[in-house]
Amino acid sequence: MAFIGVDLGGTKIFAVLAKGDEVAAEAKRKTPTQGGPLAVVDAIAEVVAELGGTVDVEAVGVGAPGAVDVATGVIRQAPNLPGWHDPFGLAEALSDALGGMRVAVDNDVNVGALAEHRLGAGKGANDMLGVFCGTGVGGGVILDGKIRRGPTGFAGEIGHTIVERDGRRCGCGGRGHLEAYAGRAAMEKRARELESKGRDTALVELAPSKRMTSGVFSKALTAGDAVAIELLDEAVSALGVAIASAVTLLDLELVVVGGGLADRLGPAFVGRVEQAARSQLFAESSTLRVIPAELGDQGGAIGAALLAADKFT
Amino acid sequence: MAFIGVDLGGTKIFAVLAKGDEVAAEAKRKTPTQGGPLAVVDAIAEVVAELGGTVDVEAVGVGAPGAVDVATGVIRQAPNLPGWHDPFGLAEALSDALGGMRVAVDNDVNVGALAEHRLGAGKGANDMLGVFCGTGVGGGVILDGKIRRGPTGFAGEIGHTIVERDGRRCGCGGRGHLEAYAGRAAMEKRARELESKGRDTALVELAPSKRMTSGVFSKALTAGDAVAIELLDEAVSALGVAIASAVTLLDLELVVVGGGLADRLGPAFVGRVEQAARSQLFAESSTLRVIPAELGDQGGAIGAALLAADKFT
Repeated sequence: MAFIGVDLGGTKIFAVLAKGDEVAAEAKRKTPTQGGPLAVVDAIAEVVAELGGTVDVEAVGVGAPGAVDVATGVIRQAPNLPGWHDPFGLAEALSDALGGMRVAVDNDVNVGALAEHRLGAGKGANDMLGVFCGTGVGGGVILDGKIRRGPTGFAGEIGHTIVERDGRRCGCGGRGHLEAYAGRAAMEKRARELESKGRDTALVELAPSKRMTSGVFSKALTAGDAVAIELLDEAVSALGVAIASAVTLLDLELVVVGGGLADRLGPAFVGRVEQAARSQLFAESSTLRVIPAELGDQGGAIGAALLAADKFT
Repeated sequence: MAFIGVDLGGTKIFAVLAKGDEVAAEAKRKTPTQGGPLAVVDAIAEVVAELGGTVDVEAVGVGAPGAVDVATGVIRQAPNLPGWHDPFGLAEALSDALGGMRVAVDNDVNVGALAEHRLGAGKGANDMLGVFCGTGVGGGVILDGKIRRGPTGFAGEIGHTIVERDGRRCGCGGRGHLEAYAGRAAMEKRARELESKGRDTALVELAPSKRMTSGVFSKALTAGDAVAIELLDEAVSALGVAIASAVTLLDLELVVVGGGLADRLGPAFVGRVEQAARSQLFAESSTLRVIPAELGDQGGAIGAALLAADKFT
């Protein structure tokens, strides 16, 4: 049976055609910056057409950035999608655009965690916390094999748990959130602040005005750049605190760390996070492992296909 | 049907005879400080005898401080019970002492949370976090109506989640744990430290050498004592951070706050904790309520009876 999974991001729409556990094809395009939700629906329909359309496809799943009502497929809040201000019934609108095809929608990080749990680094684990370090820091909690969504659909937001009381300001307005230390955008902001205060750093030299990508961080670290090393130390420490707290609250055995920054920096980075987390656990008997994600960029789309398969078979 | 529930504490054994949702009788005695686990088993058997014995009783439940293997009734780690160094099969030993009676054992805070969820402040809620501020700070997580125990039995330990990176030293050795700010023992230690550094405080005057009880804190607060006010502000703030992080991770609607300190300081204290937590939530749509526990001292024993009823009927 074939399913299509769509990873709807703030800058990119990426989709896969999944047959069984295999990715048979993939397609992508830019997320429209004009036209709001309806333009996005059209763009998804085009990506689906590029994958061969919906003949022989059982259902389509979408992972979207924001708070999703999974039962109805309504996106209630999506600050990272341009022009999405009000709740929008994505499942219904996309189903209409695809001639009545069945559509399931969930949060993008939830489906990413689902994919890692089902087919990636978390295969076989009963419980799993997925932590994804990209522009921000997202998370997904899987307990007894099921995604924990919670009544508002916001569960799993480890990036907005607090690692330091009255700490650094987060993009969301809160203080001391993990994302303010370990999200790429926050790290970029901090690097530019430090540079403007007189610290020399290769980070700003490599990305004077353009986005300070994970690749830029990687290069600066390799070159021994002091600011990059300091920012990474802070990110590792903050991830250690947030993961230790989550594990202490839920008694988890497995945390999977992925996302652009983690994928780029590799197992050495995740190993440091594991060490930081384990050193701060309460339970002496904990067998916690913190390991790298395995599905990389494809995880979200694969998870969206799994979501559709779970819902409609 | 009748069940006996036993709250096994570091200083006191308290038990109830529960018929339906009613407490028909209660009994207590001091926890033996000599003789280790076997003396405790004898003491529990005496309390059970005082309640009328096990004729007409379906099963006995015990809430014990520490990490419990619920499937086998083995207590794996119980630092607060005098002379308990090795894992001990409490369910089996107590069953033998009670002539083969069926015995269920779980962590004391888990059963306290269960009681609040089933018969107290959390009645009717699907999910609930129980936070109990006593000598330390304990917690219990209920998701979809069930206690979350986790593979090592340590789930729910919100007192040992981190509210401040590299913060104050906790009794367990960790840093920045909630318990280091909101546990009565830690607050007492801090009060004596401040006094020894020259701060005047009614806390030490009221409890010069004896235990600084919740009642002492309450009196000092009423008298406007600056140190007591400062310590309570810190406790409220730390509880706000830990609860906000737990709610952000799990998307919970209800947190119940109990334990000696909360029971003594009353709804005004819990209201301040609610305000502190709500002001730091990520999800705008959260309908989180933080409310006082309702069962007071009896909660643990009632929960232990519920545990026995759940397991054996």
